[in-house]
Amino acid sequence: MPYRPQLSQASRPATYPIRATDENGSEVLVEIAGEHPLTLYLDKREIVTLMTLGEAPEALVIGYLRNQRLVRRLEDILAVQVDWETGAAAVTTRHGVADLADRLGKRTVTTGCGQGTVFGDLMEEIGQLTLDDQARLSASTLYALLENLRHYATLYKRAGALHSCALCCGDQILYHVEDVGRHNAVDAIAGMMWLDGVEGADKIFYTTGRLTSEMVIKAAQMEIPFIVSRSGLTQMGYEIARKVGITLIGRAKGHHYLLFTGQHRFAK
Amino acid sequence: MPYRPQLSQASRPATYPIRATDENGSEVLVEIAGEHPLTLYLDKREIVTLMTLGEAPEALVIGYLRNQRLVRRLEDILAVQVDWETGAAAVTTRHGVADLADRLGKRTVTTGCGQGTVFGDLMEEIGQLTLDDQARLSASTLYALLENLRHYATLYKRAGALHSCALCCGDQILYHVEDVGRHNAVDAIAGMMWLDGVEGADKIFYTTGRLTSEMVIKAAQMEIPFIVSRSGLTQMGYEIARKVGITLIGRAKGHHYLLFTGQHRFAK
Repeated sequence: MPYRPQLSQASRPATYPIRATDENGSEVLVEIAGEHPLTLYLDKREIVTLMTLGEAPEALVIGYLRNQRLVRRLEDILAVQVDWETGAAAVTTRHGVADLADRLGKRTVTTGCGQGTVFGDLMEEIGQLTLDDQARLSASTLYALLENLRHYATLYKRAGALHSCALCCGDQILYHVEDVGRHNAVDAIAGMMWLDGVEGADKIFYTTGRLTSEMVIKAAQMEIPFIVSRSGLTQMGYEIARKVGITLIGRAKGHHYLLFTGQHRFAK
Repeated sequence: MPYRPQLSQASRPATYPIRATDENGSEVLVEIAGEHPLTLYLDKREIVTLMTLGEAPEALVIGYLRNQRLVRRLEDILAVQVDWETGAAAVTTRHGVADLADRLGKRTVTTGCGQGTVFGDLMEEIGQLTLDDQARLSASTLYALLENLRHYATLYKRAGALHSCALCCGDQILYHVEDVGRHNAVDAIAGMMWLDGVEGADKIFYTTGRLTSEMVIKAAQMEIPFIVSRSGLTQMGYEIARKVGITLIGRAKGHHYLLFTGQHRFAK
């Protein structure tokens, strides 16, 4: 049984009905995605305000701390208490976070439709990551996975304005998270992986969103060798994928895809 | 002749060709969008690193400072020098920025697929904004504008992974900017408006992206009464639009749209 911090269970209703007027002048009821500010306090110190759908806030907070390298092991987290009344997520650690003030001071904020990131530090770390080179993915498994993913993303179909991410193993979907921000969705998956003791080494990371630098960095940090996206990629996402040797597949829909990097893990 | 700071002219090539392999095993040449880190130094103090396409970096930097309320008037900016060799944008102000250290220290970072924002301060300010209530938009003008916009976004067609924003007056497009981040595109437009002395009061802000809280806040800050998006909206984007009384139109494509708020400015 993997270690579990004490966690609240504070997921929010995901969509809200509002009235709008369409081009015929008719009043229509539309579902829109929730978007809520959640301010993260790490041992009572304010770290960041995340704008989130609120589907899995505890996993989001844990994954954020993991991907920002503010917490190194799940065991260092004693409790995560999310309270939507105050919009606060209070994280209690076992020993505190060493040099926290110093590390927050150095923070630079990136904006590739992105989020605040300890970017300089991450880029150094990226150079030291090694991904599993034995993992393989075939075109037929990819097609089966894309077909399975079609049955998810139900919130998106109802409300739009959302990004989906999934952690997959072969054609099976282990986690599926939707959020108003791409980065929240991947952070929530990182949190779920820690909570369940799931490793990235033989997994596939799927996203509906674009493969910008930060998305590739986050998948690489989780040691996931495959990234599959329905969308395109940016130059820096491509360069980082090449550098870490990740297998990057874009424009994946139905029986179409473009294989950009890491060809050795992919069999047509 | 409106005041102009001293500006570099450092726009970058927008797309790069790379090789990929498609589902038939054929090698194809694909254009991908540039994504470059640009670190903003305000009077030699590091403020933020923006990940950008680099189409209009000087306007982006000016608009970022404007929308973050770090600079109050264009005349306070003496020079913007962008140097891609070092990835630096050096901004020199006339008098320095009062209490800069204090204001940066208070920064919270929002992530609605967003960027670092002085969010608390902005929300207070939002309550004090008033938008032009005499401005009008008709369905036929909206359709003509959407048709005109179809001829833009050429980079998107080539490379994908981009968001477009435009500032429009009636069915005419005054500025059109694409970037890897929605927020960069709107910031660049804010910068262009300052540089050309263009007011927002009778304009339409168009975006391909979703109407999250920050997009609505930024349009309202520029005092633009109309927001039109090809995509959907989030609950907080909706709430803020209602609060400031902005006219919000989503899912606008061809002869379709959904009118969400500010109905009094819109005539079918």
